[in-house]
Amino acid sequence: MTDETEYTPPKVWTWEKGNGGRFANINRPVAGPTHDKELPVGKHPFQLYSLATPNGQKVTIMFEELLAAGHAGAEYDAWLINIGEGDQFGSGFVDVNPNSKIPALMDRSGPEPIRIFESGAILTHLAEKFGAFLPTDPAKRAEVFSWLFWQMGSAPYLGGGFGHFYAYAPVKIKYAIDRFSMEAKRQLDVLDRRLAESEYLGGEDYTIADMAVFPWYGGLVKGWLYGAAEFLAVEEYKNVNRWADAIFARPAVKRGRMVNRKTGEPSEQLHERHDASDFETKTQDKLAAE
Amino acid sequence: MTDETEYTPPKVWTWEKGNGGRFANINRPVAGPTHDKELPVGKHPFQLYSLATPNGQKVTIMFEELLAAGHAGAEYDAWLINIGEGDQFGSGFVDVNPNSKIPALMDRSGPEPIRIFESGAILTHLAEKFGAFLPTDPAKRAEVFSWLFWQMGSAPYLGGGFGHFYAYAPVKIKYAIDRFSMEAKRQLDVLDRRLAESEYLGGEDYTIADMAVFPWYGGLVKGWLYGAAEFLAVEEYKNVNRWADAIFARPAVKRGRMVNRKTGEPSEQLHERHDASDFETKTQDKLAAE
Repeated sequence: MTDETEYTPPKVWTWEKGNGGRFANINRPVAGPTHDKELPVGKHPFQLYSLATPNGQKVTIMFEELLAAGHAGAEYDAWLINIGEGDQFGSGFVDVNPNSKIPALMDRSGPEPIRIFESGAILTHLAEKFGAFLPTDPAKRAEVFSWLFWQMGSAPYLGGGFGHFYAYAPVKIKYAIDRFSMEAKRQLDVLDRRLAESEYLGGEDYTIADMAVFPWYGGLVKGWLYGAAEFLAVEEYKNVNRWADAIFARPAVKRGRMVNRKTGEPSEQLHERHDASDFETKTQDKLAAE
Repeated sequence: MTDETEYTPPKVWTWEKGNGGRFANINRPVAGPTHDKELPVGKHPFQLYSLATPNGQKVTIMFEELLAAGHAGAEYDAWLINIGEGDQFGSGFVDVNPNSKIPALMDRSGPEPIRIFESGAILTHLAEKFGAFLPTDPAKRAEVFSWLFWQMGSAPYLGGGFGHFYAYAPVKIKYAIDRFSMEAKRQLDVLDRRLAESEYLGGEDYTIADMAVFPWYGGLVKGWLYGAAEFLAVEEYKNVNRWADAIFARPAVKRGRMVNRKTGEPSEQLHERHDASDFETKTQDKLAAE
């Protein structure tokens, strides 16, 4: 698509269905539920309703890291929300997340259940609850929050901007691809400069800021997202690559990336997670297949 | 611009300067400083480097609310960062915010200065420091964080998506305007449904979630942003309008919106704020002009 012809928007926008590219069928100009459907509830204190997109991975990585660090109270049931089939518009899901996006969490560890939505809020809630992966020292805490919020405000340009127009839109629009490619590269350079001076984003310790940024920007430099590694020349960002490799080497991260996964190798897909042994079964499947 | 011709992206993206629309001159594919420039430091514990965009307003509203609530320790100097002139690429600013965006804050109230960037991180830091506008009860706190992070993850679709393609891009691209208009309306509906059941976003109390959401979505329904009130039919969102009117009626919000402002009526522009009396001078200017 080139920039030849001019379009004049109407005075009042109206919805024309059907030309939104991949995921068009799940995008709407209104919120709220489309059908009645209760959510399942398992045996553990935390009930996660999610899918292994980058935003979903943040939270399953956090749960697996908490469990690996010995926080037995962080046991969780991870239920699959199939966004392609509209599970996020069921009434039960909307009660947990009125924004109809994964991940969404019910914390049933206390006397009254607590809902939490938005991956950044869920990471913060869990970090505060378990006193883990979020410093209490004000300077260190401010740095972690700065990078955590940086991720939340920046990734929409990577996902909803670059990823959409480069990989999913029904037409390739040069202006939009250029705009968001420039921003994606700028963001990678922001991270690269930070990781040149610091082992992790918040400082010397691995925190929820790293867990939030890794599934997006780590995924990008590792070539998992949008098939865009060559297009964005991700090998240039050497410090991001070093950091992504270190995080990916963590067993909890490997487990977290498998949970609620519906794509890739069957042995990497743990559609639901209700027990630590669920991973062992998958590992046995993998060994048996080799 | 219609969707007639197909574009094929190259294997590796390269930067072509000069076709980015308004703000094109301040967008780059790399991070880091472009020139050496130290930041000024005033007499107060907090040094804010900002501009009265929606993200900037969040923080000046928070400071004015803290002062209005009697937190005398929240005195601040607000310095103007002119993003159109590239102030955000000065070395001193980049040291405070490596992402080169406003707002950026230095907290000099303790033994060592602390940098904080990203408006959501700044709101959280100040709320925790003063014990204000962020509940400590886990359920209430989770709800406030959910809406605060919702704002951070959603507004890029409103600003960098809808606002850019509707108001600032050099060509009007129907596909992009439709995509982001749909999302802007969905987000307004998410808020409208929440505010139908709750006085404020976090519950019965006014919190940093409201301060974060108001400058964007309150600005949209009040017609301040992008001249898009008619296009998005914002009058439909009656609960958002009720809530926005209530927040706008707060004197601290009116003051906060004036700080670091470079557009609109001269009497509404307080380019820098170094003392509470700075607002009185502006009020006298306004009365004298009438």
